[in-house]
Amino acid sequence: MLLVEGTRSTLFTDSRYTFQARKEVSGARIHIAKHGLLRAASEALRKRRGRLQVAYSPNQVTVTQKGTLQALAGSKVRWVRGGDVIERLRAVKDLDELAVMRQAAVLISEVFSGVVPKIKTGRSELHVAAEIEYGIKERGGSGPSFDTIVASGARSAWAHARPTAKQLRKNELVVLDHGAILRGYCSDLTRTVFLGKAPTRTREMYQAVLEAQEAAKSVVRPGVTAGEVDSAARHRLKRDGLAGYFTHSTGHGLGIEVHEMPRLGRGEKTVLEEGMVVTIEPGVYIEGLGGIRIEDDVVVTSRGAVDLTSASREFLEL
Amino acid sequence: MLLVEGTRSTLFTDSRYTFQARKEVSGARIHIAKHGLLRAASEALRKRRGRLQVAYSPNQVTVTQKGTLQALAGSKVRWVRGGDVIERLRAVKDLDELAVMRQAAVLISEVFSGVVPKIKTGRSELHVAAEIEYGIKERGGSGPSFDTIVASGARSAWAHARPTAKQLRKNELVVLDHGAILRGYCSDLTRTVFLGKAPTRTREMYQAVLEAQEAAKSVVRPGVTAGEVDSAARHRLKRDGLAGYFTHSTGHGLGIEVHEMPRLGRGEKTVLEEGMVVTIEPGVYIEGLGGIRIEDDVVVTSRGAVDLTSASREFLEL
Repeated sequence: MLLVEGTRSTLFTDSRYTFQARKEVSGARIHIAKHGLLRAASEALRKRRGRLQVAYSPNQVTVTQKGTLQALAGSKVRWVRGGDVIERLRAVKDLDELAVMRQAAVLISEVFSGVVPKIKTGRSELHVAAEIEYGIKERGGSGPSFDTIVASGARSAWAHARPTAKQLRKNELVVLDHGAILRGYCSDLTRTVFLGKAPTRTREMYQAVLEAQEAAKSVVRPGVTAGEVDSAARHRLKRDGLAGYFTHSTGHGLGIEVHEMPRLGRGEKTVLEEGMVVTIEPGVYIEGLGGIRIEDDVVVTSRGAVDLTSASREFLEL
Repeated sequence: MLLVEGTRSTLFTDSRYTFQARKEVSGARIHIAKHGLLRAASEALRKRRGRLQVAYSPNQVTVTQKGTLQALAGSKVRWVRGGDVIERLRAVKDLDELAVMRQAAVLISEVFSGVVPKIKTGRSELHVAAEIEYGIKERGGSGPSFDTIVASGARSAWAHARPTAKQLRKNELVVLDHGAILRGYCSDLTRTVFLGKAPTRTREMYQAVLEAQEAAKSVVRPGVTAGEVDSAARHRLKRDGLAGYFTHSTGHGLGIEVHEMPRLGRGEKTVLEEGMVVTIEPGVYIEGLGGIRIEDDVVVTSRGAVDLTSASREFLEL
């Protein structure tokens, strides 16, 4: 928990993190709380002079936590909802952050390339997911940025399937959605492959999703709304009668957390700014048949979207 | 989001989970929300007859979410803080849950045994963590229940260290804290090993931590408070002058989430009940020298604590 006051900041943590905080924290004083972070922060506030007005992050703080803060800090503090000020600060990345995010994106792209030879009939979804997460750590990532998705056959139509013991079989689509955390920043990459020679209909669907992704990327630039990017992907899929099978939004912000502002969804009014990092990930999901999703991470620049992920988008028939 | 009303329940989810919900959900109607779960739940409530009183889980719901619910449901609904009713329901496991948790605990114990031969000088902490998480998936677990901890040498004194590229060296302590999710339930196991022949002082510290763990386990039974269990571990460590180096609580509840009720901390008044599953994990951490922690998962029975984890607690000098 971080308390920011004028010219000083205090990080409240507990004794599990004493040594780590001493080593890793700069720019803030460290307070090791003995009886909970909320109590320590409230007591610190009570020691300040005069009446205070304190903004908190209502998107992070639960109703219970808010009640505890209010009770412990007493009438001295007037609590103000801070809106999404933290989320807005986070949405735009500085150059140091972009350098790390580029590395995290290249890392997961290399993990994908490395795992392709291991996507074989007879292997289980869990086995492939294990290879991916092993690869992330082998390349120095601290771990996956979310639960790795490996979904094959009919299960690939579940946009957020967790991997199971189901074995990969010939003539199946396989959706791989995976990300790495590197030095605190997330990447997020999806590729869809086919085991065997894909039917024409499947190849056409892949092409439509790929073009939808390119359409969405092509409108990304500062000043455009998140909803316009989403709409570009949807518009391309409509041409092939696939818009009804695109059952989620086109993307989301990415950074310290795997889902940050802005959400690239239908009608979203958030205006893209230079330095935002977002995923572009249209997909189509047909029950019984399977799903196809293609996802990259891009940074918003004055010249448009620049890819951070580097894996090939060619349709792989393995 | 689950809405429970008298004789019916409704699960609100979004279109990413349409097929999965259809396949996996029983005992609740499924509502695929188009414009957010909060909006869908609020609109459902507005369609009910008469005025309503609705309890919500204040430990889960953020201040922003509560505000949205209130605004969307309007004056028809009186919102009541549900306290920790959900957490209390979850704390006591039924026999089906205990059977799965036993399997999750045995799974992580086998993963530990399998990884021991791979804990070698020259390997990095990340490499060992990768082997652990690979092993979890190879044995059918859906993934780690939290970010795997592999902390060696001086870093083992960081109770919650994330694994790094640091290589394991001779004459170092290595703390391995790892857990698996199996069919939705978590396990959590810590073992500490030594690379080489350990100094007498280190062996004595290990013995003290092991005896502290046994002391804590021996007082576990229905009717005892969580604080009494914590106190038993602390009391044993005091005998060797180590109580000051035991910088966290003795354990926590375990189940669908890796941290559930009750917390086995200093002075905690929660009374243990039959069927609760808790971790027992005392540890000592000395800056510069390193840390030792030993953790098992136990179920509270009328005959006392019964181990769910099955890994040997013998001090391994590798």
